[in-house]
Amino acid sequence: MRQTLREVAIVGTGLVGCSWAVDFALGGANVRIFDQNEATRTGAPARIKTMLADMEAAGLADHVEDALKRVSVAATLAAAIDGADYVQESVFERVDVKTAVALEIGKLINGEVVVGSSSSGIPASSFTAGAPNRNRFVIAHPVNPPHLVPVVELVPAPWTDPEIVPWLRARLTEVGKVPVEVKREIDGFILNRLQGALLNEAWALFEEGYATTADIDATISQGLGLRWAFMGPFETIDLNAPGGVSDYADRLAPLYFRVAEQRISPRKWSPELVARVTAERRAALPLEDLPKRSQWRDRRLVQLVAHLRRQRAQEDG
Amino acid sequence: MRQTLREVAIVGTGLVGCSWAVDFALGGANVRIFDQNEATRTGAPARIKTMLADMEAAGLADHVEDALKRVSVAATLAAAIDGADYVQESVFERVDVKTAVALEIGKLINGEVVVGSSSSGIPASSFTAGAPNRNRFVIAHPVNPPHLVPVVELVPAPWTDPEIVPWLRARLTEVGKVPVEVKREIDGFILNRLQGALLNEAWALFEEGYATTADIDATISQGLGLRWAFMGPFETIDLNAPGGVSDYADRLAPLYFRVAEQRISPRKWSPELVARVTAERRAALPLEDLPKRSQWRDRRLVQLVAHLRRQRAQEDG
Repeated sequence: MRQTLREVAIVGTGLVGCSWAVDFALGGANVRIFDQNEATRTGAPARIKTMLADMEAAGLADHVEDALKRVSVAATLAAAIDGADYVQESVFERVDVKTAVALEIGKLINGEVVVGSSSSGIPASSFTAGAPNRNRFVIAHPVNPPHLVPVVELVPAPWTDPEIVPWLRARLTEVGKVPVEVKREIDGFILNRLQGALLNEAWALFEEGYATTADIDATISQGLGLRWAFMGPFETIDLNAPGGVSDYADRLAPLYFRVAEQRISPRKWSPELVARVTAERRAALPLEDLPKRSQWRDRRLVQLVAHLRRQRAQEDG
Repeated sequence: MRQTLREVAIVGTGLVGCSWAVDFALGGANVRIFDQNEATRTGAPARIKTMLADMEAAGLADHVEDALKRVSVAATLAAAIDGADYVQESVFERVDVKTAVALEIGKLINGEVVVGSSSSGIPASSFTAGAPNRNRFVIAHPVNPPHLVPVVELVPAPWTDPEIVPWLRARLTEVGKVPVEVKREIDGFILNRLQGALLNEAWALFEEGYATTADIDATISQGLGLRWAFMGPFETIDLNAPGGVSDYADRLAPLYFRVAEQRISPRKWSPELVARVTAERRAALPLEDLPKRSQWRDRRLVQLVAHLRRQRAQEDG
């Protein structure tokens, strides 16, 4: 296994695959991209070019033309993978689709290549069990849009070679990502479990009539979320008591235990509840304005990431 | 009740009380501050001056000298409250302390004045039951540091006059806060319940060996927390599926229900677990560096708030 990424294959060139191509090309690797759908495949370079231009405009990337030159479209899966140190698979997230692709990729690689899958929730064991070289597969789950959000969850299957997670963690760090290790498989990995826990409480509070969706949203976006943009939950509470996290636990653990005890009978998000949440959201944002608002979110995100990088650069120098 | 805040009394001039004084003075009100502890009381104007200077330096406030002139120290509680439209109480958060202060304040006000308490978790019903004019009391819970974080939770007691929450919501909005309404009392209100739900999952994942505290933190600070700095959890998921929140629920509600079902036997944060979390945090940040890191957090927060305000100002035209 090479100690630097030189040749990367991208399999599946939707939004996620294209974002990965941006990350690796900016990191200096040659990137061969492939998608089974010809239109998706041939349209990918234009998509990648737009992402690079947006990043350059926000001060998040330079030499983007050189990066774009390092990206090439492969005509077949075999041509994309041939000679690759690393394969990032980002095909449609369904077990049967992932299983078929893992089988094909497994046949094409040797025992040195590493294959990361962008799965957001399907563990590697449920689609690599029957694949050749299954010990070379691992989950590398990015967050949308992956060229802007740094975190990547690495989750091994029980049969993943133990050398793979540390190797991939180092390589992804080198190209500017922030990998985290999920030591073994679990539903939702870390990110969606944390999101799910907060969402379940938010939906329950709304269901029980304690607050509107807009007010629950403001509690995060005008409150808790500000610190979480640059500090995680453990560091946040560690700084929230004079004696650090143990002092904080002395004061607040009993409250949080009561909160947990009040939720030991989880309810599904019922169709009626989903309809009520939908009604509030559609009153705030008509369905036809969703794409425009998503573009707003991405603009805000690129500016926020640029702001945070400037802050870190100032601190470092 | 006046439809604009002209005269505000601040009772308790620790960090929270001083921050409130900053908010109201910048909003144009005359602010009389009082603390039973003479050193805390007489030291408050210097503290308020520093907060105003920091905000001015970050571009978050101007005319700060005029604002400072609107703040005066009262020698007695009665002098602070005399003629006030609104009283913000921020004394030490313990039921007996709050009860005694509510009794005193209740005697001094008439039936027109509104009294907000900065309690982060103690509901108003547990310390205003025996106070005169108890129908004039409400919780107005800010987030640390309150002069930088916009959100304020408004929580009425069962006997709070129904006109108070809408009135206070409007007045606080006018001085630049973002109030949210908690319709009735509940342990932890909204903010700490959402934080608690996420923390309980984070602690459980750490306890079960799925990830380090540093990696769980990075999942938020380099991932989920970026969007939450400018969008709440409902808007986030509404934009994360082509058909909006109902489409998202179709896809992900089953996963989140499984996550909830796996946590129906909540465990306390045991002393052993607190010790393990503490060991990781103290390795990352020695206890003696905690104050320095808290200052770093506040610098980062003031810069982030300034960045977000600039973004909104650009959008507005």
